[in-house]
Amino acid sequence: MNDHVVTAAASLQKSLIQSRVRARLLRSIAATLNDARDLIIATCSQESALTSEELAPEFARMTRTLEMFADVVDDGRWTRTAISPNESDPTKAIGPNHDIRSFLIPLRGAVIVFGASNFPLAYGACGGDTASALAAGCPVVVKEHPAHRNTGRLLAQIARDAIKSASFDPDLLCYVEDDGKDTASLARSLVEHPDAAAVGFTGSTKIGTTLISIANARAIPIPVFAEMGSVNPNIIFPGALASRAKDIARQLAASILARHGQQCTCPGLVFVPSNEHHFADVFEEELTKGAPRRMLSPGVREGFERSVAKVAGALGEDVSDHTAPSERKSPLLLRAPSKAAVELPEVLETEMFGPAAVVLSGSMADAESAIARLPGSLTLSLWFDESDVTTVRHLLPDILHRAGRIIFNGVPTGVRVCEAMVHGGPWPATNRPESTAVGPRAIERWCRPVCFQNTPEAIVCPALAAGA
Amino acid sequence: MNDHVVTAAASLQKSLIQSRVRARLLRSIAATLNDARDLIIATCSQESALTSEELAPEFARMTRTLEMFADVVDDGRWTRTAISPNESDPTKAIGPNHDIRSFLIPLRGAVIVFGASNFPLAYGACGGDTASALAAGCPVVVKEHPAHRNTGRLLAQIARDAIKSASFDPDLLCYVEDDGKDTASLARSLVEHPDAAAVGFTGSTKIGTTLISIANARAIPIPVFAEMGSVNPNIIFPGALASRAKDIARQLAASILARHGQQCTCPGLVFVPSNEHHFADVFEEELTKGAPRRMLSPGVREGFERSVAKVAGALGEDVSDHTAPSERKSPLLLRAPSKAAVELPEVLETEMFGPAAVVLSGSMADAESAIARLPGSLTLSLWFDESDVTTVRHLLPDILHRAGRIIFNGVPTGVRVCEAMVHGGPWPATNRPESTAVGPRAIERWCRPVCFQNTPEAIVCPALAAGA
Repeated sequence: MNDHVVTAAASLQKSLIQSRVRARLLRSIAATLNDARDLIIATCSQESALTSEELAPEFARMTRTLEMFADVVDDGRWTRTAISPNESDPTKAIGPNHDIRSFLIPLRGAVIVFGASNFPLAYGACGGDTASALAAGCPVVVKEHPAHRNTGRLLAQIARDAIKSASFDPDLLCYVEDDGKDTASLARSLVEHPDAAAVGFTGSTKIGTTLISIANARAIPIPVFAEMGSVNPNIIFPGALASRAKDIARQLAASILARHGQQCTCPGLVFVPSNEHHFADVFEEELTKGAPRRMLSPGVREGFERSVAKVAGALGEDVSDHTAPSERKSPLLLRAPSKAAVELPEVLETEMFGPAAVVLSGSMADAESAIARLPGSLTLSLWFDESDVTTVRHLLPDILHRAGRIIFNGVPTGVRVCEAMVHGGPWPATNRPESTAVGPRAIERWCRPVCFQNTPEAIVCPALAAGA
Repeated sequence: MNDHVVTAAASLQKSLIQSRVRARLLRSIAATLNDARDLIIATCSQESALTSEELAPEFARMTRTLEMFADVVDDGRWTRTAISPNESDPTKAIGPNHDIRSFLIPLRGAVIVFGASNFPLAYGACGGDTASALAAGCPVVVKEHPAHRNTGRLLAQIARDAIKSASFDPDLLCYVEDDGKDTASLARSLVEHPDAAAVGFTGSTKIGTTLISIANARAIPIPVFAEMGSVNPNIIFPGALASRAKDIARQLAASILARHGQQCTCPGLVFVPSNEHHFADVFEEELTKGAPRRMLSPGVREGFERSVAKVAGALGEDVSDHTAPSERKSPLLLRAPSKAAVELPEVLETEMFGPAAVVLSGSMADAESAIARLPGSLTLSLWFDESDVTTVRHLLPDILHRAGRIIFNGVPTGVRVCEAMVHGGPWPATNRPESTAVGPRAIERWCRPVCFQNTPEAIVCPALAAGA
């Protein structure tokens, strides 16, 4: 039903061949968005249950990410250009002594972007997926998110105007409306489109896996980069617990209360090496200071109720206050022994997307057993003091396999946009743990390498010249 | 049925944590193989229909690739370590001003290697997949190839002895026998194993897609890096045809006759910008100088017969001499107008894995239409003179999207093992066009990035120290 849109976007790919064009477009979009800052934040706040204060830093992240990718494109190192010249001693070459030069090129076609419900700006029509795809040289087709249609349309319109002002065809960034009545068919038609190069998705594991299946079933499969569920474990070590339980509890509660727990990096599981209740009591007290609040959308609210019911049910707890349908949701803390959790995959694996967490208490040995059964997460935080360093070092090799970002003495929310950032992780945090959705290297999702063999001077471009 | 094997291999992963251990193991395997060179080549030649002369350079490629990966591990740059220190001016950081440091780590578990029928050494038990996986830090489980069981066992035994001599558990490289009676179940059990980290496969598109489906259907999907079918187009431009048709025909014929066409980079389609028959006549004459020869295995022979029948059938040609079952196969050249081929996907998309090619003749415009319908290939060769440069430059942006390696005035067979090599390409050449199966960067297939946030000095390793 949107056949012409994807084709229209993809057909413009050649106009993005020159890197200076892409950098100019990205800067132009960022500048035009900045000019409309107040209108965008007001529009978004009105329809999204997020406050202007929450949206202000997100707005900055959106426009500065666009500018960052302009810098990345100008810099040129993102192409990972490699030059293997002829060996002067041919016997040193493994195989025939050809001159080989490689670099990244964009995938052929348009990138389909499915934005997130919880970051309408940073993961929206002009968010990181769109910015990195345009930077790579792929036109973009954004699927509207039914939870913030006005914001999406406004962002897309501003970006399209910016592209037009820069004398390019605005269909380099297409926007497909979605009234929410048949999102499944719409999504399928976009992912199955022959001119789709790849898919960027941020949302639930359920929808993510559906899109992945559609993409895999194509005659020519295309990659989906899906950021899905994450429980974001926090492990508190004995020394840290003894010396600053209250401080850690406060930081974690604040991390959960930000955006009312609706962040992909929200801490959902906290391991405490003790059966005492002091930490959990303080944590609960801090958490329940948070007022009941409207969730991002009815869908998010229902999902939160279901997941809380699932975890509480496995623990045999009555949380009917929280799972009953209601407009506003209060923060919630659940508790269980680590030893019991080892046998409760519902507790270890369920992301409660909202203001809720589970404290698992018990010996470090029990915690270690439970950690070995954790699903992949975007993040994993370690809270420790000097006296815990040996234990941390002992656990680290296993912990590395559980997340994309290991945080030392800090909460998982708050993602810096920088070269070394890994916003990704093992299944189900993402389906492509070799990638990051944030930072300059996010551009690589939309690329593949190609090499030239024995390139004549008449063909070689400056970036491929030896010594470049 | 081989549950314990994959578990045994994977359980040893921690013994590979130190890079100097991995480098030592790789060099030890290479040295031990070199000591047994004559026995290995004799064993392989006896069972594989490949001559000692063909196997000698392949043997060197195998051992030198192992040594190259030892150098890669020692060098350390393969980890793509990135350090984003705190900004001295915090307003310059996008998001919270954390210190972030990232690097590649191996996937958790064992890499399952399905070697190739046509390169029993370079793509066998101690081939590039095994070498790169061990270099990354993943134990390996090799599935025996029924076409060269003696070679596979000999290689695995030598490697295991070398690992043992280096005082490590030989199960770091496990070998699973396959008598060919139920390869499908055996393959499934390996790919479905919970301790499998990833799969390396080189072979047919049919088996490759089966393995990919199995891996995608797992509770926790794992990546399969499959190198499958490739038609390897060659485009001859008018100037080159006018000045050196005979020379090009000879080179292409020799490329096809090497290993009797059974190479993944064998040139299968040749576009000629003319309706004259001179080029095709010389090409055919050179090609049919090649004697009939035994194929690698009965399976390869039957596949060759089927694919030749399919292409010839689409062209309405009678090739019953070639498609009749017979022990030895003669080289074959088919011909068609480029204009007709545009409508014949069987001709453009069928890899005839063996000594056969199609010459497509007609105008450059017809060639261009056909090229736009080509499937992805590992390679694409351009034969041109100075007078053709403008045309080549015009076609290049589209051609880039058709292959992983673009060759200027050369045959596609013969893959140099070097940093810039891209041995990969769009579907169906591979299912992961972002990867290469050859060269140092092949190690990245078995890795993913992880980042550390605000790493304390007590935890940070030397490679992550600022300025390292």
